[in-house]
Amino acid sequence: MREVAVIGVGMTKWGELWEKSLRDVFVESALLAIEDSGVDHIDSMYVGSMSPGLFVGQEHISAMLADYLGRNPIPATRVESACASGGLALRQGFIEVASGMSDIVLVGGVEKMTDSTGAEATFALGTAADQEYELYHGITFPGLYALIAIAHMEKYGTTREQMAMVSVKNHLNGAHNPLAQYPFKITVDQVLSSVMIADPLRILDCSPITDGAAAAIICSVDKAREMGKPLIKITGIGQATSTLELAQRKDITWIDATYLAAQQAYKMADKTPQDIDFFEVHDCFSIAEICVMEALGIVEKGQGGRAVEEGKTAIGGQYPVNPSGGLKSKGHPVGATGVAQVVEVVKQLRGEAGERQVKDARTAMTQNMGGSGASTVTHIFERE
Amino acid sequence: MREVAVIGVGMTKWGELWEKSLRDVFVESALLAIEDSGVDHIDSMYVGSMSPGLFVGQEHISAMLADYLGRNPIPATRVESACASGGLALRQGFIEVASGMSDIVLVGGVEKMTDSTGAEATFALGTAADQEYELYHGITFPGLYALIAIAHMEKYGTTREQMAMVSVKNHLNGAHNPLAQYPFKITVDQVLSSVMIADPLRILDCSPITDGAAAAIICSVDKAREMGKPLIKITGIGQATSTLELAQRKDITWIDATYLAAQQAYKMADKTPQDIDFFEVHDCFSIAEICVMEALGIVEKGQGGRAVEEGKTAIGGQYPVNPSGGLKSKGHPVGATGVAQVVEVVKQLRGEAGERQVKDARTAMTQNMGGSGASTVTHIFERE
Repeated sequence: MREVAVIGVGMTKWGELWEKSLRDVFVESALLAIEDSGVDHIDSMYVGSMSPGLFVGQEHISAMLADYLGRNPIPATRVESACASGGLALRQGFIEVASGMSDIVLVGGVEKMTDSTGAEATFALGTAADQEYELYHGITFPGLYALIAIAHMEKYGTTREQMAMVSVKNHLNGAHNPLAQYPFKITVDQVLSSVMIADPLRILDCSPITDGAAAAIICSVDKAREMGKPLIKITGIGQATSTLELAQRKDITWIDATYLAAQQAYKMADKTPQDIDFFEVHDCFSIAEICVMEALGIVEKGQGGRAVEEGKTAIGGQYPVNPSGGLKSKGHPVGATGVAQVVEVVKQLRGEAGERQVKDARTAMTQNMGGSGASTVTHIFERE
Repeated sequence: MREVAVIGVGMTKWGELWEKSLRDVFVESALLAIEDSGVDHIDSMYVGSMSPGLFVGQEHISAMLADYLGRNPIPATRVESACASGGLALRQGFIEVASGMSDIVLVGGVEKMTDSTGAEATFALGTAADQEYELYHGITFPGLYALIAIAHMEKYGTTREQMAMVSVKNHLNGAHNPLAQYPFKITVDQVLSSVMIADPLRILDCSPITDGAAAAIICSVDKAREMGKPLIKITGIGQATSTLELAQRKDITWIDATYLAAQQAYKMADKTPQDIDFFEVHDCFSIAEICVMEALGIVEKGQGGRAVEEGKTAIGGQYPVNPSGGLKSKGHPVGATGVAQVVEVVKQLRGEAGERQVKDARTAMTQNMGGSGASTVTHIFERE
């Protein structure tokens, strides 16, 4: 397998983009990525999107977006594993370049979520969970994470305040991200007094409904050297699955798919969590970031909440998590999120992240997951 | 890139499977493929499915199906390009094995279509076309193919009877396929007097609404030799896209994505259409098979209808097309169709196709497409 590098990234401001369609949102980000990379063509394209069928009544978006990007007739494929769809697009692009079949691949993610009603969006997001054994019986997606939060609080003594501090930290980072949907600071008090969604999770524990896209250009390392950009290699990749249904897991506070996908990436890149300068992870809910930190091995089991409280995951802390602002502040257009993590990684590793720059960052890891953790994709990146 | 082989296939009877859920249908076929191959594990899995979100309210099926197959925590990814989703699953599996990343990959396709109402199914299938520029204005998916049929009749003198003969030929073949949804013969008169769907297409010109799945096990050629099965290599692959919107094409009778994807596969396998012993193609409507034959280069432009009338595409003809019964007789659970084509190819190349056997078949081609032709995936198979 050939070595693979990221040579361009693109993303426009996320939010409630009423005046733009799914195709507009995607093409804007994809053009920025192409421009950033300097390539004069792309060989093929992967698009991560969770549910354009339910959100905007459009499947078959891969061919449509290749055409609107002016790249028809290149091969274009959509991949989906709920909110891990974007990370999977990167993985498929990586495999295609590594195989030698293509030299330059565009990987993107997109979701247009605000064209549906609140009830429709809640239903669509719920389809990441088990329809027959979970949703049918009345639980919502935030409800599943609320169960995880309660279990984590009972088992490890994680506090309500510690969860709030995840959101506060991510909004502090996101306040310096001009592309974030909610680029402003919040306080622990504000989180604790915000509207209850699924006890104990309040609205400021939850990532928002967002329209947005993100894109990256990946290629062989040989090609990347020709292009003369700072060389950012993808040196480790991982993917694992678990039961969709939360009730089937031995311990709902432990995201086994994330643990396994992380171990694969660490092994391939020959790294440990201590070698990684910062992490972009899937904080769809505040409790999710806490569980993910534990499964990635950044902290011991049960210590995620305490680490946040001690400031260890802040920019400038021992192991910064979500310098971009994470899903909470940046927004969460579900299929785009995994690719937006790559956008942040590249900006950070190039030293172009402005006020949210992680000092001297050379190595980063992304973790993108679907459902209540049934799918996880991980990648490790290193600047040469 | 390593050479890749197919060593096992599985498929259960297709139809209106009221008593089974999407997961049941998929797992039955996947287990048959694993049993047929003799492998003791699989490294990863790709699933093609067009719209489980709209048909049964369930996205994120890849992790769910890996779990129900007892293969959690392997990597599992859904791919989608409307009705070409199954063919794309095979393509992604091929790339992964060819890259050296995995040795044994399960590729499957599934769709559970009859759990929705007729109106819901019509809407879901329509999302393969352009929602904003086609469907919104009132046309249905059969309506798009009706436009193609009218154009083909006007431009080339293709007759209403010739289109009917596509359905008659495919039902004749399908009558010998015990897994087909409609395994019986029909006549030209029956087609011509059947219910009108979108003038000039009648219901017996249209593939049906179907529940079903199909699966195949692919691996490196080295591994396949170890397993001791007849060696069936995948020697050519192709994929191309076109505009989703029919009105944007220069000539709606010419499926340019199929032409380009076929040329890629021929070049890679070093074959011409004359070297192929039989074809499994995407006859979602009778006119589609006629257009596809022309784009694959089996016949000259405009000669598809005449070739069918002259019996050249029958089993025993000069270039048999759809010995399985095609989508028309076998059924069309959209995401499964591309994988079911592989099931037929393997049975034929092993000489296990019974009364529908193409004599001395050693080389075959599959063509699977999405929408009104905006996505096409092709594969060429050769028995050593």
